[in-house]
Amino acid sequence: MDRKNEPFAHDADLAWEPAGIGVTRKILTYRDEVMMVRVRFEAGAIGPPHSHPHIQCSLVECGTFDITISGRTERLVAGDSFTVPPDAVHGAVNIEAGVLLDVFTPMRRDFVLPGT
Amino acid sequence: MDRKNEPFAHDADLAWEPAGIGVTRKILTYRDEVMMVRVRFEAGAIGPPHSHPHIQCSLVECGTFDITISGRTERLVAGDSFTVPPDAVHGAVNIEAGVLLDVFTPMRRDFVLPGT
Repeated sequence: MDRKNEPFAHDADLAWEPAGIGVTRKILTYRDEVMMVRVRFEAGAIGPPHSHPHIQCSLVECGTFDITISGRTERLVAGDSFTVPPDAVHGAVNIEAGVLLDVFTPMRRDFVLPGT
Repeated sequence: MDRKNEPFAHDADLAWEPAGIGVTRKILTYRDEVMMVRVRFEAGAIGPPHSHPHIQCSLVECGTFDITISGRTERLVAGDSFTVPPDAVHGAVNIEAGVLLDVFTPMRRDFVLPGT
């Protein structure tokens, strides 16, 4: 279902989906220009280095992560945040099981329409 | 300090600032295109109806809020999220003390350079 013109997204209505080994994600509110996604990492799970043209900003909701952006790595804990410039290579190594809140601008069409 | 070209923002380095009666905010990571802001509401505090050209998406981190967007109101709890179109009138009434995570695109220059 395309819900990009729906302003409200109730968590109880949304499902987790697989997003890699030990990683699941839940797509929260979105519209063309922006998308909010919660990403849950099991202990030791990895978000492999990758890049995309979308600008990303993320909050560590809980847990501990080593985040690498353009070759620079910092250890982040709950409440810390980061921004990924367009096309910058970035990745996450989970140190203690946790959750990231990722926000993308524009929205990740590939998350709702795989193959696009 | 302008930290919009700094990809990492550590929560311990950031300060809460007043943002209305019973409301404080902390500016997290940002760059020109996007800004993440945590907004803390004391019990019963109100975010009065207002609008701005920036698109906003928000997550209820904790607490309970009645959120109104373009005249439609829904009650949101932790994990729920919403998106505000450009220039749409929106407001928040806090029902149970809580925290919103607001993300704006583009960034809110007025938050770091008052008067702009």
